[in-house]
Amino acid sequence: MKRVARYEEVSHFDLETDVVVVGFGGAGASAALEAQRAGSNVTVLERSSAGGGSTMMSACEMYLGGSGGTALQKDLGFSDSTENFYAYMKACFGDNVDEARLKLYTEQGPEHFDWCESLGVPYKRGFFPGRDVVAMTGDSLQYTGNERSWPFTEHAEPVPRGHLPADADHNGGQVFMSVLLQRVEESGADIRVDARAMSLLQDDIGRVRGVIAKIDNKPFVIKAGQGVILTAGGFIMNEQMTRQHLPRYYPIDNPHGNSGDMGDGILLGVAAGGHAINMGEAFICVAHYPPPELTFGIFVNNRGQRFINEDIYLARMGHYAMEQPDKQLFMLIDNEHFARPAYQESVDIIAVGESIEEVELDAGFPQGVLQTTVAYYNQHAENGEDPLFNKSREWLKPINTPPFALVSYSLDILKPAIFTLGGLDVLPTGEVLTPDREPIPGLFAAGRTVAGIPRTSKGYASGMSVGDATFFGRRAGQQVASSTRN
Amino acid sequence: MKRVARYEEVSHFDLETDVVVVGFGGAGASAALEAQRAGSNVTVLERSSAGGGSTMMSACEMYLGGSGGTALQKDLGFSDSTENFYAYMKACFGDNVDEARLKLYTEQGPEHFDWCESLGVPYKRGFFPGRDVVAMTGDSLQYTGNERSWPFTEHAEPVPRGHLPADADHNGGQVFMSVLLQRVEESGADIRVDARAMSLLQDDIGRVRGVIAKIDNKPFVIKAGQGVILTAGGFIMNEQMTRQHLPRYYPIDNPHGNSGDMGDGILLGVAAGGHAINMGEAFICVAHYPPPELTFGIFVNNRGQRFINEDIYLARMGHYAMEQPDKQLFMLIDNEHFARPAYQESVDIIAVGESIEEVELDAGFPQGVLQTTVAYYNQHAENGEDPLFNKSREWLKPINTPPFALVSYSLDILKPAIFTLGGLDVLPTGEVLTPDREPIPGLFAAGRTVAGIPRTSKGYASGMSVGDATFFGRRAGQQVASSTRN
Repeated sequence: MKRVARYEEVSHFDLETDVVVVGFGGAGASAALEAQRAGSNVTVLERSSAGGGSTMMSACEMYLGGSGGTALQKDLGFSDSTENFYAYMKACFGDNVDEARLKLYTEQGPEHFDWCESLGVPYKRGFFPGRDVVAMTGDSLQYTGNERSWPFTEHAEPVPRGHLPADADHNGGQVFMSVLLQRVEESGADIRVDARAMSLLQDDIGRVRGVIAKIDNKPFVIKAGQGVILTAGGFIMNEQMTRQHLPRYYPIDNPHGNSGDMGDGILLGVAAGGHAINMGEAFICVAHYPPPELTFGIFVNNRGQRFINEDIYLARMGHYAMEQPDKQLFMLIDNEHFARPAYQESVDIIAVGESIEEVELDAGFPQGVLQTTVAYYNQHAENGEDPLFNKSREWLKPINTPPFALVSYSLDILKPAIFTLGGLDVLPTGEVLTPDREPIPGLFAAGRTVAGIPRTSKGYASGMSVGDATFFGRRAGQQVASSTRN
Repeated sequence: MKRVARYEEVSHFDLETDVVVVGFGGAGASAALEAQRAGSNVTVLERSSAGGGSTMMSACEMYLGGSGGTALQKDLGFSDSTENFYAYMKACFGDNVDEARLKLYTEQGPEHFDWCESLGVPYKRGFFPGRDVVAMTGDSLQYTGNERSWPFTEHAEPVPRGHLPADADHNGGQVFMSVLLQRVEESGADIRVDARAMSLLQDDIGRVRGVIAKIDNKPFVIKAGQGVILTAGGFIMNEQMTRQHLPRYYPIDNPHGNSGDMGDGILLGVAAGGHAINMGEAFICVAHYPPPELTFGIFVNNRGQRFINEDIYLARMGHYAMEQPDKQLFMLIDNEHFARPAYQESVDIIAVGESIEEVELDAGFPQGVLQTTVAYYNQHAENGEDPLFNKSREWLKPINTPPFALVSYSLDILKPAIFTLGGLDVLPTGEVLTPDREPIPGLFAAGRTVAGIPRTSKGYASGMSVGDATFFGRRAGQQVASSTRN
């Protein structure tokens, strides 16, 4: 498969337009709308039979804040400075951030939220203070990451930044995308479904000037006078690519995304001279809550050792789960707080007992280790302290109400949801960069096709992908629309 | 920088040859020699001012065996079946292996060793049974990985596979490469130094047909009738690439290799349609031995928890070190076995004491955890057992001779040596593959420019890189020499 073809060899175009957007999910629709509104003629190519992408399948939380706070944050009494937002993100991703990108994102969050509301997406002025992945109360603002957990509390003031469409529960993606797709249609964009971009057209000086697509299985050659935007998602559905780029995550039994996440955008971009980076990193999810009371439990590995403060976000738990021997982890919980986790069907109760000793024996752990771990935990939990891992006082309580259960969250049993966090290296404008970080004229990208804001599960929070995809999708659309027509 | 240029646009060649080899280290020299011996005219381009590459800077151990054993293994009384070798490698790398590549490597090891000896490289019929990275006894055979450690002992019979030039100590690379480079010169190959490959010449059907180089800073266009072999090493010296591809390893204070390991081969290959894979993985080294008696110590993280059997190879320790909180790790050792590690200058004694309690206090560890860890370890070590991590009985002894020292091997202090394990996806013949795993005609690669046999530090053993580079370098040379001239 040849993913780049010579523009000079094309003798006939089936269509001449200004902008081609490859992929009609959150990033692509945002890009298309902004480009069309700025006066460009946009053609959207969607491999699937309808738009929506992985964003439509999500709850459509957006992780937003900064510059004093979004309208939603402010209306609910929260202020969120850019400095505080930035400090939190640095605590999440350390050196693995694109500074320019992060600066823009933490400055322009309020503007982006206003745009979302201006589309007609409803957001309810209600704050959900609980510990859940998605507020089920209809409220639109909540904590979605590690804001209230150690060590993040040492770096930034906790502020809720999860912005969720009103009364949508898990269907926020449906709410948001149905509105956004409608706005794109109304804008006059030319939308083609069952339309897969096969190759980019690149001229002899390296400028990307169009796309060869297959539409309804027929070749279709499109000239894009201003440029092409790649917003075709990640590659979690591409079995060969995940094997080659994400060896640490194997086996990937539960790839999370839509079936078009085949890496098309990344591969097209690389073929035209782009640089795929951060390809070994993915989001991985161990949903050890809700219900929140499960947070009173402790996690141990198969050596009976604790390894993390259990009050963290599920993607961070996924990251640490990967590092445990044999990727095995177990929640020890007492009768008072026992529950089934809402989002993990396949946990397995491997031992129960009236004493920790009995549980340890039943589980086949090396003798004494679990007892020691629990005794140490209980002794300090009694005083509201967790000297080893700094779990928040709110979730500290001695585990001492029998019977006790040891519940396996081992990854071979859980089959955790995974999606990719690597992709093309781009500027905040969406301009695709070569390995020398020179922009490729006429080529743009956004969404999970690029290495964006979230770059490791360790620091991920719900809303970072959709926030990043729509925020930078818009900027790519604006940028291409401001380009000279060729 | 344009790394691929159109062959059809070239009007003049400065040189026409059969084969161009880019990079004159272990892989390139092996490839050049085999191609030249098979009747091809070979031009070698070396970016540096002399050949040798990272192989010349290494001890030039080669990890070899299989098919009953190499001549060296057999002469020293060891037999090594392909099945056993294969089983060991699978235990090292799991699913992250190229099966076809591994099959060939575990079958043809003896032939490769014979070839090394046939060059004139001396190997001494002596077996060094100790625990060291490089035998300092002049002997040529030793254990270099995790063969005698759990869990590898459960998967394969321990066999020594480190093949080291005779009496070379750490200078095996000098011994080996000076011989190999001389053989290449004698073969009549055209060797150009201060010669950097800038772009590949690719024709309109995708075949690679030559190279545009800079030789002594002047452009030099070479036609390669049979093909181009990329053997330009990894990318550990390329600050931007390591930051983008190896975020987990940051900061990389001690990049290990030669200054030409700038990723040239990988980037040229990708520009021509190749696929760079496994780019997030690297070798990382915590040299916690020799001297071997340090293995009687235990390692704990900053929570006072043990995390590994300490009798493992240094690259595996590096892998686990990365996973500890804040990448901190500490060796607790008693007076009887205390020593400075031979290859880590910068360890730091952070606490000493007449009792573990005193050490714990001095180190500022959470109270009681180190005492508990040591008590548990000692109790079982007394019986020659390590229920938690299965350290070999040979290295189990209670830690009870005061004074005790806690020595920091934390990565910010150690600045561990790191080199890259990602690169182009290739067939065992060296043919470079597209993301669809179709060979790119005329393009070959070997050595650290490709994703080869060793793909994670977790299972690495000394000798796997040089073994892989020279073994598959040869095969790439043979393959290109058997190609039709274009």
